[in-house]
Amino acid sequence: MEPTCLAVILAAGDSTRMKSSMSKVLHPVAGRPMIAHVMASIAASGISDVALVLGRDAEKVEAAARRPDLSVTGVMQKERLGTGHAVLMAKDIIARGFDQILVAYGDVPLITSAPLIAARDALAEGADVAVIGFQTARPTGYGRLLVENGELVAIREEKDATDLERAVTWCNSGLMAINGRKALDLLGRIENKNAKGEYYLTDLVEIARSLGGRAVAVDAPESELTGCNNRAELAQIEELWQKRRRHELMLSGVTMIAPETVFLSHDTEIGQDALIEPNVVFGPGVKIEGGAVVHAFSHIEGAHVAAGATVGPFARLRPGANLAEGAKVGNFCEVKKAEIGKGAKVNHLTYIGDATIGAETNIGAGTITCNYDGYNKHETHIGKGAFIGSNSSLVAPVSIGDGALIASGSVITTDVPADAAAFGRARQELKPGRAKVVRERNQAIKAAKGSKS
Amino acid sequence: MEPTCLAVILAAGDSTRMKSSMSKVLHPVAGRPMIAHVMASIAASGISDVALVLGRDAEKVEAAARRPDLSVTGVMQKERLGTGHAVLMAKDIIARGFDQILVAYGDVPLITSAPLIAARDALAEGADVAVIGFQTARPTGYGRLLVENGELVAIREEKDATDLERAVTWCNSGLMAINGRKALDLLGRIENKNAKGEYYLTDLVEIARSLGGRAVAVDAPESELTGCNNRAELAQIEELWQKRRRHELMLSGVTMIAPETVFLSHDTEIGQDALIEPNVVFGPGVKIEGGAVVHAFSHIEGAHVAAGATVGPFARLRPGANLAEGAKVGNFCEVKKAEIGKGAKVNHLTYIGDATIGAETNIGAGTITCNYDGYNKHETHIGKGAFIGSNSSLVAPVSIGDGALIASGSVITTDVPADAAAFGRARQELKPGRAKVVRERNQAIKAAKGSKS
Amino acid sequence: MEPTCLAVILAAGDSTRMKSSMSKVLHPVAGRPMIAHVMASIAASGISDVALVLGRDAEKVEAAARRPDLSVTGVMQKERLGTGHAVLMAKDIIARGFDQILVAYGDVPLITSAPLIAARDALAEGADVAVIGFQTARPTGYGRLLVENGELVAIREEKDATDLERAVTWCNSGLMAINGRKALDLLGRIENKNAKGEYYLTDLVEIARSLGGRAVAVDAPESELTGCNNRAELAQIEELWQKRRRHELMLSGVTMIAPETVFLSHDTEIGQDALIEPNVVFGPGVKIEGGAVVHAFSHIEGAHVAAGATVGPFARLRPGANLAEGAKVGNFCEVKKAEIGKGAKVNHLTYIGDATIGAETNIGAGTITCNYDGYNKHETHIGKGAFIGSNSSLVAPVSIGDGALIASGSVITTDVPADAAAFGRARQELKPGRAKVVRERNQAIKAAKGSKS
Repeated sequence: MEPTCLAVILAAGDSTRMKSSMSKVLHPVAGRPMIAHVMASIAASGISDVALVLGRDAEKVEAAARRPDLSVTGVMQKERLGTGHAVLMAKDIIARGFDQILVAYGDVPLITSAPLIAARDALAEGADVAVIGFQTARPTGYGRLLVENGELVAIREEKDATDLERAVTWCNSGLMAINGRKALDLLGRIENKNAKGEYYLTDLVEIARSLGGRAVAVDAPESELTGCNNRAELAQIEELWQKRRRHELMLSGVTMIAPETVFLSHDTEIGQDALIEPNVVFGPGVKIEGGAVVHAFSHIEGAHVAAGATVGPFARLRPGANLAEGAKVGNFCEVKKAEIGKGAKVNHLTYIGDATIGAETNIGAGTITCNYDGYNKHETHIGKGAFIGSNSSLVAPVSIGDGALIASGSVITTDVPADAAAFGRARQELKPGRAKVVRERNQAIKAAKGSKS
Repeated sequence: MEPTCLAVILAAGDSTRMKSSMSKVLHPVAGRPMIAHVMASIAASGISDVALVLGRDAEKVEAAARRPDLSVTGVMQKERLGTGHAVLMAKDIIARGFDQILVAYGDVPLITSAPLIAARDALAEGADVAVIGFQTARPTGYGRLLVENGELVAIREEKDATDLERAVTWCNSGLMAINGRKALDLLGRIENKNAKGEYYLTDLVEIARSLGGRAVAVDAPESELTGCNNRAELAQIEELWQKRRRHELMLSGVTMIAPETVFLSHDTEIGQDALIEPNVVFGPGVKIEGGAVVHAFSHIEGAHVAAGATVGPFARLRPGANLAEGAKVGNFCEVKKAEIGKGAKVNHLTYIGDATIGAETNIGAGTITCNYDGYNKHETHIGKGAFIGSNSSLVAPVSIGDGALIASGSVITTDVPADAAAFGRARQELKPGRAKVVRERNQAIKAAKGSKS
Repeated sequence: MEPTCLAVILAAGDSTRMKSSMSKVLHPVAGRPMIAHVMASIAASGISDVALVLGRDAEKVEAAARRPDLSVTGVMQKERLGTGHAVLMAKDIIARGFDQILVAYGDVPLITSAPLIAARDALAEGADVAVIGFQTARPTGYGRLLVENGELVAIREEKDATDLERAVTWCNSGLMAINGRKALDLLGRIENKNAKGEYYLTDLVEIARSLGGRAVAVDAPESELTGCNNRAELAQIEELWQKRRRHELMLSGVTMIAPETVFLSHDTEIGQDALIEPNVVFGPGVKIEGGAVVHAFSHIEGAHVAAGATVGPFARLRPGANLAEGAKVGNFCEVKKAEIGKGAKVNHLTYIGDATIGAETNIGAGTITCNYDGYNKHETHIGKGAFIGSNSSLVAPVSIGDGALIASGSVITTDVPADAAAFGRARQELKPGRAKVVRERNQAIKAAKGSKS
């Protein structure tokens, strides 16, 4: 039988250095709150019970942490007396009896399931404490992991370290797994006899060993353990996340000409042989099928782009935009809540909202679906093989039939049947020589002004 | 009493490697000429008198260097005989009598006031020469600062250095402060007995010491001392400036998802809890209030964005754009010299110029304020709670009252009173079956062409 | 007489790690297939005969490799038995008799002519084999170049290397030049007695030496030898190419504020004193003259921009766009196959396609040239000094004379003579109080809905 495990997630921090009006764990990375990233990795490591230690913005943090595959219980931490104290806020939940306790942090969002599983496995193999460590070229300031014969002997703080110990580059991340059956006993033995008067979780290593238990360290990449204390660090975390995900997508067969200029969302899906040009921003909820092309300067959220469809440059797809195979949405075009049929073209300076456009229909430059009357949104339906002349205004609700033709510059307010042509524009009038008169009058005015000054 | 100080700024360089039609010190960094950056730091270090040593583009450089808080005197350097010679171009000004002389360079624009103040303080504490140095991992090519017992013994050029001296990583930046009362005597003793026949300012260290004076070195970050000799270095300087300023803003509570894609101007102000998405370019004169949101792909100059207002994606705000609280300017919209009232919406494909828009007014997609008649600019005034239908043309000068409604696709040439509706569009005409006729005719033509070829 | 040389280019790889529907050598770098980059450097090194070893997508690869200055013969490699085997696919061509054989790779596209020439020169000076090597800080995995007294003694594979040999940082790139008169003999002696049962070209070093010949190594920068095995490496190659070309352009006098955001094409030409702002993407076929300005967020392909012209921000120039001196194409404007005359202005939200615009003409915001009727493209001609009012639709084919004036919001379907004014818009009608009625009705409906729920 799989051992049971409770994750205790510390998310009570005050985050003053964030200078933020909200808890730092609510700040998004790749478009979703940091805390939600942690929860996703907890779930991916096979854990289903979480005690969430809350402080600032408790309700919002708890809401952001919720997942259908996790049972999350919030507990408040009112005083800040160190990590050992924070974990004990979950005492009652720990007391329900779990084989393992895993401690993670709401502001360390890049952690993946792999080191969490490694720490759990170490407990399963007999350790009482399994600390997650990382190798770093710049260990200064971190607690060093002192290992002897495969056992973690101590976590030595910088200030207490000998020169030899300071040379150690394997450092403590703060994350650890603890034998769940002994956890309350071990945690209860942590003391606060130190400069700050706080209870440190790191003491568990020596406590467990003093009771005859075994402590070990498991490894994780440094990048996964990056914590967030201010918005510059938040940006670093975002960058690390983006690099990781771009790399995965490229290895899976997505071409990115300049990956460092492509910004993905936590749930962006892109198929093999899709081409993503420089400067593309993905909001949440996007699926780009294999073989689709997203040109430079495109902004896409909540949209689906089928194989062979092309987007941009300078296109904006908003939630509900659905491009069928071979459809094109081009420059300075915005599409929202609309189906763009197979091979249909929306190429220039157009707004399509609350609409359906049939296959092979051509939407002229400057077309606007007038979907809003100031009170309600209305729909526009355009059939297959229709031709909408440039600079047309389609005043919704309105339907335009298959094969219909709208003359350029028309305002269309009533339905147009299939195969009909519709005109909604004034006849042209000419005033010969009139421009010359205007020009000469303006020049005279200008000259008069000039002579006065 | 504060010691008086004259800054001598060398800005006469020929800049041939810039391959530029103007003096290199006029090239902008963060939207303002390099020389102006130097002058700002001079002023910030408490100096009020400057001798500006000019060569190419003397008038323009002097104009770019002017500041209300500095008294700047330009002097021409006609020959280029080394830095010692250049400083002596300001002989007459130095002779007016200052406690201190500070030498800086027009093409070292990232210098901040801190090392300048440190150098001045060193003089105040008794040194005759205080050289600004920097620690570097790549010292090759720089003069090394040789320090003994806290005194700067010599500046050793690469070619004259022993192996031991070459291992020194503290290097000479060229910037220095000199005892103002001794400066002319010291400068006059510099000789040109060297390979190039030039007068080197660095000789002052040994000259001062030979006369029983004391020389010291003070430290500055390497990045502040980056000089500019070609446009690749200019780009490096820009990047360093941008990184520094982005970091400051993030620490002050501004969120930047991808700071490396946000380009700030020298005077960009952004408040706490503002969100700046990827790919935003700020021109000069922008103030973004706390809590405002600037979406991706926005270009903003000379504009004010109030709290809770949102800009972009794909928005352009030009000088005089003023967004009140909660106002929105969306995709493919340009706003110039216009007030956008509280909660007003300009969301799609719109040009608003020389206009005022009242609170809660909605501007439909594709609306154009026709502000230019080919000769003059005219104004458009729109009241509160109005609704401008999509694809409307508002031909200025024109006023639209509170609560008025403009039908989609209208051309509006005369004022519309409050609560009135205005239509300026043709009635729709229908030609049933006409599109089919056109289609069949075109297909026949195509077929005929095909059979001929 | 110059020695004759045959280049053997290996381009048969299966590229499975690319996860691509096409051969990896067809993937573009800077907008042209990798293989074409290699061929350009081959041509630049003075070679005119190429044997192209083909596998996947043979026809397309051969087509992409063709150049007017190279005689290219394709040969198929059906089995993959190592580099030595691959080169022997070109046996019949080698047998025609060349002084030199140069082996290069289709997936090493950053190679320049310099190291190729160096390798050829080494043969000319008496070597039988000249291997191109590179210095690297991370040699692990590469074959090390073991050099004694100026001769290349062996290429030692990682697994066979002693600790001392592993410390060598000069590594084998795989590219080499071979004495053409001995090549078939040398190649025929390569054996496949190794773990993989493959024929390795690297064996030539020891084979040549065992026959009394001399092998040498020549140097190339590591970046030129970056190979491509997956799309992450493809992105790295693109980045290296871009950095190299941007640097060249900056040194030649082009200002780039943020070069890392400017994406060049293989043939982009930019003149001295041109200014390229951040976030500009160049497709193929662009020439920007000296002194032109390209503002941020511009996308340019197949276009010519004359001195003093300005583009963007947010402009898209497509093939055939030709901007004369001082012309302006501004935000949210698309120009395709069109001449924009001297000083003409296309500043806002406009589509110009298949058109000519005369000098000093002003095109109002929102103007559309309606060039497509669903079947054919038609042309629009606008004279000098004309004024096209905002939001106009110009239905092609149509001509507008010099100095003519089009009223805002007009649909123009027939020609407008010089100096005439044309109107094509409906007269405005006013319905006093109507907006209020609509508002109150909608509010009543809303209230009724609210009371039901």
